[in-house]
Amino acid sequence: MSALSEGLTQIVIPLASLVGIGFALLQWFLVSRVKLSSQDSSNGYKQKLIESDEEEEGINDLEISIKCTEIQHAISVGATSFLFTEYKYLGIFMCVFGAIIFLFLGSVKGFSTKSEPCTYSQGNTCKPALANAFFSTIAFLLGALTSVLSGYLGMKIATYANARTTLEARKGVGKAFITAFRSGAVMGFLLAANGLLVLYVSINLFKLYYGDDWEGLYESITGYGLGGSSMALFGRVGGGIYTKAADVGADLVGKVERNIPEDDPRNPAVIADNVGDNVGDIAGMGSDLFGSYAESSCAALFVASISSFGISHEFTAMSYPLLISSMGIVVCLITTLFATDLFEIKKVSDIEPSLKRQLLISTVLMTAGIAVVSFFALPSEFTLFNFGTEKEVKNWHLFFCVAIGLWAGLIIGYTTEYYTSNAYSPVQDVADACRTGAATNVIFGLALGYKSVIIPIFAIAIAIYVSFSLAAMYGIAVAALGMLSTIATGLAIDAYGPISDNAGGIAEMAGMSHKIRERTDALDAAGNTTAAIGKGFAIGSAALVSLALFGAYVSRAGIKTVDVLTPKAFIGLIVGAMLPYWFSAMTMKSVGSAALKMVEEVRRQFNTIPGLMEGRVKPDYANCVKISTDASLREMIPPGALVMLTPLIVGTLFGVETLAGVLAGALVSGVQVAISASNTGGAWDNAKKYIEAGASEHAKSLGPKGSECHKAAVIGDTIGDPLKDTSGPSLNILIKLMAVESLVFAPFFAAHGGFLFKFI
Amino acid sequence: MSALSEGLTQIVIPLASLVGIGFALLQWFLVSRVKLSSQDSSNGYKQKLIESDEEEEGINDLEISIKCTEIQHAISVGATSFLFTEYKYLGIFMCVFGAIIFLFLGSVKGFSTKSEPCTYSQGNTCKPALANAFFSTIAFLLGALTSVLSGYLGMKIATYANARTTLEARKGVGKAFITAFRSGAVMGFLLAANGLLVLYVSINLFKLYYGDDWEGLYESITGYGLGGSSMALFGRVGGGIYTKAADVGADLVGKVERNIPEDDPRNPAVIADNVGDNVGDIAGMGSDLFGSYAESSCAALFVASISSFGISHEFTAMSYPLLISSMGIVVCLITTLFATDLFEIKKVSDIEPSLKRQLLISTVLMTAGIAVVSFFALPSEFTLFNFGTEKEVKNWHLFFCVAIGLWAGLIIGYTTEYYTSNAYSPVQDVADACRTGAATNVIFGLALGYKSVIIPIFAIAIAIYVSFSLAAMYGIAVAALGMLSTIATGLAIDAYGPISDNAGGIAEMAGMSHKIRERTDALDAAGNTTAAIGKGFAIGSAALVSLALFGAYVSRAGIKTVDVLTPKAFIGLIVGAMLPYWFSAMTMKSVGSAALKMVEEVRRQFNTIPGLMEGRVKPDYANCVKISTDASLREMIPPGALVMLTPLIVGTLFGVETLAGVLAGALVSGVQVAISASNTGGAWDNAKKYIEAGASEHAKSLGPKGSECHKAAVIGDTIGDPLKDTSGPSLNILIKLMAVESLVFAPFFAAHGGFLFKFI
Repeated sequence: MSALSEGLTQIVIPLASLVGIGFALLQWFLVSRVKLSSQDSSNGYKQKLIESDEEEEGINDLEISIKCTEIQHAISVGATSFLFTEYKYLGIFMCVFGAIIFLFLGSVKGFSTKSEPCTYSQGNTCKPALANAFFSTIAFLLGALTSVLSGYLGMKIATYANARTTLEARKGVGKAFITAFRSGAVMGFLLAANGLLVLYVSINLFKLYYGDDWEGLYESITGYGLGGSSMALFGRVGGGIYTKAADVGADLVGKVERNIPEDDPRNPAVIADNVGDNVGDIAGMGSDLFGSYAESSCAALFVASISSFGISHEFTAMSYPLLISSMGIVVCLITTLFATDLFEIKKVSDIEPSLKRQLLISTVLMTAGIAVVSFFALPSEFTLFNFGTEKEVKNWHLFFCVAIGLWAGLIIGYTTEYYTSNAYSPVQDVADACRTGAATNVIFGLALGYKSVIIPIFAIAIAIYVSFSLAAMYGIAVAALGMLSTIATGLAIDAYGPISDNAGGIAEMAGMSHKIRERTDALDAAGNTTAAIGKGFAIGSAALVSLALFGAYVSRAGIKTVDVLTPKAFIGLIVGAMLPYWFSAMTMKSVGSAALKMVEEVRRQFNTIPGLMEGRVKPDYANCVKISTDASLREMIPPGALVMLTPLIVGTLFGVETLAGVLAGALVSGVQVAISASNTGGAWDNAKKYIEAGASEHAKSLGPKGSECHKAAVIGDTIGDPLKDTSGPSLNILIKLMAVESLVFAPFFAAHGGFLFKFI
Repeated sequence: MSALSEGLTQIVIPLASLVGIGFALLQWFLVSRVKLSSQDSSNGYKQKLIESDEEEEGINDLEISIKCTEIQHAISVGATSFLFTEYKYLGIFMCVFGAIIFLFLGSVKGFSTKSEPCTYSQGNTCKPALANAFFSTIAFLLGALTSVLSGYLGMKIATYANARTTLEARKGVGKAFITAFRSGAVMGFLLAANGLLVLYVSINLFKLYYGDDWEGLYESITGYGLGGSSMALFGRVGGGIYTKAADVGADLVGKVERNIPEDDPRNPAVIADNVGDNVGDIAGMGSDLFGSYAESSCAALFVASISSFGISHEFTAMSYPLLISSMGIVVCLITTLFATDLFEIKKVSDIEPSLKRQLLISTVLMTAGIAVVSFFALPSEFTLFNFGTEKEVKNWHLFFCVAIGLWAGLIIGYTTEYYTSNAYSPVQDVADACRTGAATNVIFGLALGYKSVIIPIFAIAIAIYVSFSLAAMYGIAVAALGMLSTIATGLAIDAYGPISDNAGGIAEMAGMSHKIRERTDALDAAGNTTAAIGKGFAIGSAALVSLALFGAYVSRAGIKTVDVLTPKAFIGLIVGAMLPYWFSAMTMKSVGSAALKMVEEVRRQFNTIPGLMEGRVKPDYANCVKISTDASLREMIPPGALVMLTPLIVGTLFGVETLAGVLAGALVSGVQVAISASNTGGAWDNAKKYIEAGASEHAKSLGPKGSECHKAAVIGDTIGDPLKDTSGPSLNILIKLMAVESLVFAPFFAAHGGFLFKFI
């Protein structure tokens, strides 16, 4: 038996969630102490003085403060309105897909309301398939709503913090850093704590109906992961297209043709670009990581429910995944204090080490945390099911599983940093290749992306081998959870990036001095790297999560082996490996087409609005926002349909084995495409920033802004945009989502799937 | 029993080979009737009149003819000298790797010279493992030599034909086309016939020793495939780096910086560029397709040898793969006559349809040919082994297997054409994206490449499913053979491309008129498409071949299932899927670095040689040739080592299951990377040519040469160079080679492999 009693478990989990939410609100409060000039919509501006302790350049310049407020307002309104429009569409999708889930799963036993004998817990009676269909649908809706909430709250705090970061940058880089980082932490903690709380509450509510039928209970709960991930898909794809259409369009005309700086207020696409950062990199990414978190929890819970924990009804041991997440919140809370209170950022070069230190501290502390949880929450020995066979597992085995996932995440994070930060030779080589033009820059960048795949894949492979050997599929599920256990910290340093990016944009638009812009640029460069690290985590955890879900799916569908020597599985494998390409083709083309439209609009405005280039007249920002909005809402449907329909079609027509092949193929191929795309894009972006900053002799020899080298670097950066912010990060949702969807629909496929092969 | 007697089989196969060789020599003779001015090395030029029937512009211009001869001579000398240097290195490799094969396979039974009981043909005695080690080594060396010979002969005819094509272009596009096409046919037929003949003779010679031990005989013969493919790897990688370093270097300085045309004689890298076409696209590609051909034959023969044909010693049925290839030679011979004698090319727009027609005619005729062979060579019913179980197969089942491979090849070819020819919208869209600069061009091009994967993968998947369902792994092996049965025609239209490219280069360098250059450009544009089609075939067949080899390996290694749910296999799968990225990273970086060096050298020459830009002084071509040679020889080693060592290391340390995973992963991921890389590159190249040719209103609005759009297109073309000519086509060798190597070493891995896991 576990050392921790069921009663205590029932207290610890919600308590940790509430602590996390409380901490997030505290951080929000601290950010809110940076005052903006408030705007009175009817009478122009009601002007307040900015509170400040120090006196530095322009610190009391009311004009600038008002401008910042105005820009922030525009960004916030744009982002909110886009998200609401997006959510309207997603609402329709949720209803339709919820109905599909109910109908498909309900039909498994012909909508019978009779109880059934259990599959795993032999001799007992379980609830009817119709109940599972109903509760799966409810869980799906809950997951979808939590995902939407996660994205929305992230966007709200980000658009709340961006101008505040800009204003703080006047006081020094340290102050600006703290503001941006705290805001990232708000998002991180809200998301982690909310996700945990909703899951915990749902389980307890579902239990009121299910009682002792834990098989049905945790099977239904997997709908939570599906809901989370399907919203994340549209969030990532829609947001990604939005932001990159605007970004590419703004850069192509502004920087390349008109030779005006990035984020110049004369550029009509500049507001759309900054809105995009918030809806794509913040809201999309938040939904994405929430999805990973929800799925890995659900995969672990499901596998545990059909093992000895579930069958012998050990609630504390069953709740091991939730307890790990609870511990993660506490560990991340302590870790955050290191960045905000224990160390101080004094100069630009402190930023990146400080963020890297966050990763390391959280990993080290969490390792101890995992040991504690494993010791108290698990019996010293227990039985897991492994595709029909049984496996004896000890509690320290699970400690190693979670820990290896955690440390694999750190390795992936550090590798990503090495390949995308301009402090190291890979990015510097790419920058150097700009000497001979854009073509060599692109060739070197692509090669860098391909190369950056090697170490993460080995890290994932080792994590898989060790955790599977120790605890079969449950081991992999908790390894994924281990990688995500420090999600609050991961999200904090990740969200910090786009907030800094926005802050830089606001500084430029408000016409603040070069010095301020340099500070925000330094924050932003570190942010590019942390964004890449965040994507690395997202992809690495997605790989583990998908494998765990895949394992759960295979168990649920009653498949004993997935033998690539059978043609059914092999054609699934090769077609699955193709899907990431199909998906990327769609998203890249969407960004390209939307960017072309944006370019035309921006050019049109520059050509037809007199006085725009001279800064006397404001451009028509709204038109550009509309182009991005329309493009992203229209273009997110085909890739979304590809991902959502593939498991349904393959499972229904070709059956569970082919679907298993598709999942495995998409997983092993998608991980590579995703990692290389993200890192290539990150490297190009930072190679450009390296040339712009001119911080070393080498960098100076390539610059300055506007040189031929810099122009080549801008082309690389533009190409990288859709790779790193649209197709790359969406791919990890593709692999997770197809897996979780297959798991949810597994009972249906097992009962009625493979229609076409049966027919032949 | 087969309708065709053993005696007749023994006549038909060598006869078909000799007919093929004879036809190739006839074509060569016809090409040689185009006379060049011959050069007397001691006394300058001995000038002959060019024979001609028609009188057209410049047809009797002796000056030009001499110049062409001179340039051809320089290219031929450069290519020959590179290949000899390359072969010197490969000779060392062959000896070392031959020794490894002998030692590894010899050690399986501890170098015992005693006969063993057979594995499959129960109750009989087979030759000792040591004999198999010895004959495998011999077969390896024979395969390697035949591969080298194939590449070398191709290069010889190509460098013989290039200037002749240029000179014929003065008489009209039709004449030039025939010359280039005939030369391609020389290569195609020589290679197909040679490959068949050497294989046939080897089998008969080996039989003198093996007698009735067909298991040992055909196991040893697989060394032939390994030899062919390992030479092909180095040929493709080395040649690919050579040609693209020169091409990229020449373009970056010549076209982009100095604004001089492609192939301008003032460009110091121009000779290296043209040499590169011959050593990379001709010699490399020849070795590659020979490798595919040898491997698919060996895979089919091996699988047959352990089935009823082998056990009951039915020679004609065993020789089914060779008979299919024999029929292929006859069919291609007839097909060639359609292009050279039955239809005439009158205008530029006839070229591409004529080449496409070749594909269609050969496929239709071959379908009938396969039916004939299947009917006469096979018993009406027989038994195949399928991983331990037996399968009853009818002769018309095999007809469908071969035919579906053949038609899948046609579909892949046509899809490739659609995505890479500038007659269709995909390439035109890419060209259109150049309006907004290089970045959108690259984004659209990448998206096109990703998208072009879809149909070929479905075609391959269907071919796999059908052929496996009908005749298990043997079905897949003969499907691969079916795709390659029209290899002579495939190679003819493929080799035609680089020959035309060279012809254009020579026209430019010899200072021929704009009209001539336009004709060669039209030939070349069609050539780009056919080269892409050739690569599509190479990749498609590689996928099928690898799967067949994979099946043979699994049989030989005694594995019953490759279950991705076991961690051993799954980590193999994900690491295998990573290998194409690692490999591409290496080759892309190599091309990039070598190109940087080339750029510096070309710039140096332009800056330091007075009178070079004015055309008064000749550049130092030799230095550029040296840079390409050194770079390619040095840089081909790491990717070569990656491919050659991976199976050995994985098999020895991790065992047969993990290796099976690696092979499957590399296969399903490599195919996608290879197809998308080849098609992206081909599309960019033709988008550029589309703008340059300005044949439509739309194209005119983007051009002319030197416009901003055109510059953007040139950047795309340059990025595509290493993708389409170095990393893309090398990847199909990667997947084949790892599979055939695993097959050859399977007895060793099965006996001694998995050292590391055993240790744990």
